Amino acid sequence: MISIENVMCTDGSKKNVIIEENVITSVGKEKDRSGTVIDGKKKLVLPSFVNTHTHLAMTLLRGSGDDLPLQEWLETKVWPVEKRLTGEAAYYGSLLGAMEMVKSGTTCFVDMYFYCRDIAKAVEKIGIRGYLGSGIFDFPSPESEKPFETAVKFIKEYTNKSELIVPVMAPHALYTCSEETFYKCLDVSRKYDLIFHTHVSETEKEVKEFEEQKGVRPVEYLYENEFLSEKFLAAHCIWLNDAEIDMFAEKRVKVSHNPISNMKIAAGVMRLPEMVKKGITVSLATDGAASNNSLDMVEVMKVCALLHKVYTGDPTAISAAAVFEMATVKGAESLGLKAGLLKEGYLADILLVDLNEANAVPYHDFVSNVVYSMHGGNVDTVICNGKIIMQEKELVNVDEEAVLEKAGEIAHKMVSG
Amino acid sequence: MISIENVMCTDGSKKNVIIEENVITSVGKEKDRSGTVIDGKKKLVLPSFVNTHTHLAMTLLRGSGDDLPLQEWLETKVWPVEKRLTGEAAYYGSLLGAMEMVKSGTTCFVDMYFYCRDIAKAVEKIGIRGYLGSGIFDFPSPESEKPFETAVKFIKEYTNKSELIVPVMAPHALYTCSEETFYKCLDVSRKYDLIFHTHVSETEKEVKEFEEQKGVRPVEYLYENEFLSEKFLAAHCIWLNDAEIDMFAEKRVKVSHNPISNMKIAAGVMRLPEMVKKGITVSLATDGAASNNSLDMVEVMKVCALLHKVYTGDPTAISAAAVFEMATVKGAESLGLKAGLLKEGYLADILLVDLNEANAVPYHDFVSNVVYSMHGGNVDTVICNGKIIMQEKELVNVDEEAVLEKAGEIAHKMVSG
Repeated sequence: MISIENVMCTDGSKKNVIIEENVITSVGKEKDRSGTVIDGKKKLVLPSFVNTHTHLAMTLLRGSGDDLPLQEWLETKVWPVEKRLTGEAAYYGSLLGAMEMVKSGTTCFVDMYFYCRDIAKAVEKIGIRGYLGSGIFDFPSPESEKPFETAVKFIKEYTNKSELIVPVMAPHALYTCSEETFYKCLDVSRKYDLIFHTHVSETEKEVKEFEEQKGVRPVEYLYENEFLSEKFLAAHCIWLNDAEIDMFAEKRVKVSHNPISNMKIAAGVMRLPEMVKKGITVSLATDGAASNNSLDMVEVMKVCALLHKVYTGDPTAISAAAVFEMATVKGAESLGLKAGLLKEGYLADILLVDLNEANAVPYHDFVSNVVYSMHGGNVDTVICNGKIIMQEKELVNVDEEAVLEKAGEIAHKMVSG
Repeated sequence: MISIENVMCTDGSKKNVIIEENVITSVGKEKDRSGTVIDGKKKLVLPSFVNTHTHLAMTLLRGSGDDLPLQEWLETKVWPVEKRLTGEAAYYGSLLGAMEMVKSGTTCFVDMYFYCRDIAKAVEKIGIRGYLGSGIFDFPSPESEKPFETAVKFIKEYTNKSELIVPVMAPHALYTCSEETFYKCLDVSRKYDLIFHTHVSETEKEVKEFEEQKGVRPVEYLYENEFLSEKFLAAHCIWLNDAEIDMFAEKRVKVSHNPISNMKIAAGVMRLPEMVKKGITVSLATDGAASNNSLDMVEVMKVCALLHKVYTGDPTAISAAAVFEMATVKGAESLGLKAGLLKEGYLADILLVDLNEANAVPYHDFVSNVVYSMHGGNVDTVICNGKIIMQEKELVNVDEEAVLEKAGEIAHKMVSG
């Protein structure tokens, strides 16, 4: 039992929030002091953030190859270094990334990477939700000669194993997997009722090449071959034409928008306003820290709003409230998770923001302040699945300094070779 | 005397930094323990940020009118509220804004607003440098029926009065001032050797209207009438053609780039790479918190790099190192201030960043981490003009909580009417 008393809500009212087991049971006047009581004074309560596309352990690589053309970056800074990835490195990289996520208010994320069992261990230690997919290619991964088999093994092992870990099916992309592999992935994803998570039309080049080879565009291919469904979570989706957007809408595909990563590698601008108009559920994500370079959803919200305003030339293109929903309830919806709202019956995945800071004053509009004026460092307390995992900016389940040191050492070894 | 011992520098070396009076006197092995000693362990030392365009007291309005078309925002959310501005409100709004700036590492800013004497008091109390201009229009300001006269009065009063306050000449824009007013401003700015700070070609509409009325574009007008010089600090400068960029380069005009504000009101994208190529000194700024909505230069650096990468389609369009220079030494250069570098003989305007945080690890590239992965909340200690003004994230010269409360109250009264 956790009770947060007298805490500010986004509508400007002060309420008490009661949590029993892992669920919010009351938001209102009711008080219950039988368990842990948190003083909500000068704090704002919010649903915590859902980050729908990451490569968590890549946090080890952040800052080791910025400002380069995509191909040069991959060939010289990412792939050679990833060859040196070990389970231990993935574990510490994931601890580091998960720490950063909690510090900035994220309690749930979708990941595609290697050594998922090690990632799962890190995620459970920190105490957040990980939707983990072992990345699948038609060539060996850093972990395995047979990425598909490795992925299936993780799915079998972790299905219904842990309260916090949910396996997902994560073939990397249509340009790195054969059609056969994609079909095999679809079969397994249906059998286990998994989210099907993949990169879709991130660069113009990949779309052109696919069309040249197959005679159809990537989303057309996915549509015609019945890959698309409510369980399909597509990352990036920048180079979609009108017909493809309609296909996504028709099939209720979920889109993970990664504006910072897209901007940094100059991949392009996703057609967010059109997608929203068509009723597509679009959530927000950071992507990995090798291309963002942070895992901070507060920052992503602001940049998302800014990007689409300037790109469309319309300051009303997207509002603070809309991007806030993308970062919370739309992300949860994309995963079929009853979270992302501060409401009775919803999962107790919430955070408290410190209002006693210069960048949080005045309080004309709390959601505006969260999106446009605060930063990740304003997050004070984080609760996931009904458990306090950060309090007064200190993580509860981990020795932060020890992890930072160890992760830093491993990262240096990996990058210096 | 302040000595910072064993502190990390951006090149990865650990050094000692010695400050005497208001100047850095040593960066290297030398130690001097005769004064205040700061332990630099797990801290990174940087020159502090220079924010070259703000409307500081407008921090009172942040969040009170986002996501609106420009004209509607000005007419319904800004102008009616500004009519209720008082000296006391300007003082508390400026305290609030200056607190936020110091918290995120800024120690010097250029401002255009009203009640400059009150702003000056706030700036001196917090202990940063303010280049303050009383905004001039051809119609009454919230402070005065005669804005030009009020501005000149402030200039006379504050020239050589204070170590931290430097008056600037700040006619609002060519579309709100007559030619006569601009000439009068130029005369006074020359007489007192002031920075001439004004908004230039922020929106396409203002450029078109000016051209229709005068037969020349705004920058052509300024060039032909000899307004442009090394002392001319132009904010925004989005809608410049090639010839106008050349005019700026020829006259060594200083440009203040405000990417977040430009994006939020969908004004457009400044041609930064072209300007840099022509050798123009471009610095960074937040603009006021009514259109940003924060005063955080760490955030501005990242968004600046992201914007120009995606806008040009080139991930190499601007580097982390280049935007870091824009936020530090280029800003100082724009003001003729010997600051912005961690170097003997430069002003002791510096900051320490906390490296013991998840978003600061690993250390592959310190400048990349500051620009791309950290946020304003990583700033730990700030020194301005040789004095410690923030230590371990606490401001030294002000009761933060009291200011937040008072500024919040005043802001509510102003906005609710």
